[in-house]
Amino acid sequence: MKLVRYGKKGEEKPGMIDADGVLRDLSDHVKDIDGAHLGDAVLHALSEVKPDHLPEVKGNPRLGACVGNIGKFLCIGLNYSDHAAETGAAIPEHPILFFKANSAIVGPNDDVIMPRGSTHTDWEVELGVVIGKKCKYVSEADALDYVAGYCVINDVSERHFQTQLTGQWTKGKSCDTFGPTGPWLVTKDEVGDVQNLAMSLDVNGKRMQTGNTNTMIFTVAQIIEHLSGLMTLYPGDVITTGTPPGVGMGIKPEPVYLKKGDVMELTIEGLGTQRQTVGEDT
Amino acid sequence: MKLVRYGKKGEEKPGMIDADGVLRDLSDHVKDIDGAHLGDAVLHALSEVKPDHLPEVKGNPRLGACVGNIGKFLCIGLNYSDHAAETGAAIPEHPILFFKANSAIVGPNDDVIMPRGSTHTDWEVELGVVIGKKCKYVSEADALDYVAGYCVINDVSERHFQTQLTGQWTKGKSCDTFGPTGPWLVTKDEVGDVQNLAMSLDVNGKRMQTGNTNTMIFTVAQIIEHLSGLMTLYPGDVITTGTPPGVGMGIKPEPVYLKKGDVMELTIEGLGTQRQTVGEDT
Repeated sequence: MKLVRYGKKGEEKPGMIDADGVLRDLSDHVKDIDGAHLGDAVLHALSEVKPDHLPEVKGNPRLGACVGNIGKFLCIGLNYSDHAAETGAAIPEHPILFFKANSAIVGPNDDVIMPRGSTHTDWEVELGVVIGKKCKYVSEADALDYVAGYCVINDVSERHFQTQLTGQWTKGKSCDTFGPTGPWLVTKDEVGDVQNLAMSLDVNGKRMQTGNTNTMIFTVAQIIEHLSGLMTLYPGDVITTGTPPGVGMGIKPEPVYLKKGDVMELTIEGLGTQRQTVGEDT
Repeated sequence: MKLVRYGKKGEEKPGMIDADGVLRDLSDHVKDIDGAHLGDAVLHALSEVKPDHLPEVKGNPRLGACVGNIGKFLCIGLNYSDHAAETGAAIPEHPILFFKANSAIVGPNDDVIMPRGSTHTDWEVELGVVIGKKCKYVSEADALDYVAGYCVINDVSERHFQTQLTGQWTKGKSCDTFGPTGPWLVTKDEVGDVQNLAMSLDVNGKRMQTGNTNTMIFTVAQIIEHLSGLMTLYPGDVITTGTPPGVGMGIKPEPVYLKKGDVMELTIEGLGTQRQTVGEDT
């Protein structure tokens, strides 16, 4: 299933994308697409619903983040071997963890707004993992049992804030609008092998990032094992799993950063496409 | 006012501590002590309630975190000049920011549980700042207008996880139970000068940390100015503002870490006392 949340910010309703790409309203079957409704029983019940019996949603409503009320927004850094090679960074011994503020989360096609003083705003296409069931101390072998599904995330990053404002990456990762999430939460049964998904990011129609989840240093299952050894993961927590080569910071001979009016388009195989226009706070 | 949340975990009710230290039930006046109920209007209405008209809560119920449904749990590192001097660290140019997972938040007297593999769990008494009103790009001069009140926080930290698990402090800060918060949210009108509060932490009755918020490198107002320049702060966000000298990691000639059965007692002038017993996951 492709689950979505549509409507004005803060008033999103649950929906589903049917086999023909039509948006259908799920309000009669589930209150929201959030941690309270991502367990096996709810997802099974939704899978029994016949999409052509659901009301079609007319027009072209805004999509919200595909998960509501995200608890923790966990981020893994430097997790692609080809990206590490590109930057000359050493392969980390364990997954690098930081948080994005959950107030940074926006819909997949909402504007990305550079904050005041921003000069180095960059893009990062990433695979998002949506936790469906509470877990702690879970093994790699069992880890994917706790996943509800996957989505596209743009881990927008202000590199100056991230590296020059003294300590910890979080500052450059947590600005408002720096976490476009969606368009869809695709349930894991529909994704197939999550470690073999092509991914790309274009800026103004030019391909900047090309990658595949098969070059992850730590797989989704290994990441869940590691994180759940540190803290309980809850339904509705989201893990974004690092970015492949091609970020603006790494461009030679000179880095390239976003400017007002730029358009980013991000795609992961089977998970859909997001598209953001860049704005700025003045 | 001293506002509290009491009862079983996940079922906390709002309460107030009266002038005699008696716990009174606030359920008839406010649904919860959380972001939705920390604005000026609600706090003013609560201040008009006569405590001796409120039902007395009998027994000695558990206290929950004094703020419910915390959105962001923002943490400032290395923010006391005497602590920086003690450790030989340079004075940072800007506040150092990291996040604790909001799933780490517990009541002020709940057990602190060391996770599997923990060998270096440490204590940090800190002043917590509870945001009462949404703010962005706020100036230092106006910053305290957006504060609802203050509380005690123990920024429990696993030093090995924090520094040896490759990158970013968050791993050592986010374990379950590593964020005791409370006992009370003390509204700012009752706190007086927030930059002159004595603070202390004992382990097993022995004084380990002694400090005062007057040695903060960045004041509460400066921290809010800085953070609100990076991201919107919302009602119910909590900022913990760094720790004074005396953490276990800094003890000479050998660091001292917590062990099962240890008891921590943390006090900040006017904000009350927390007391946790240390346990461990096996």
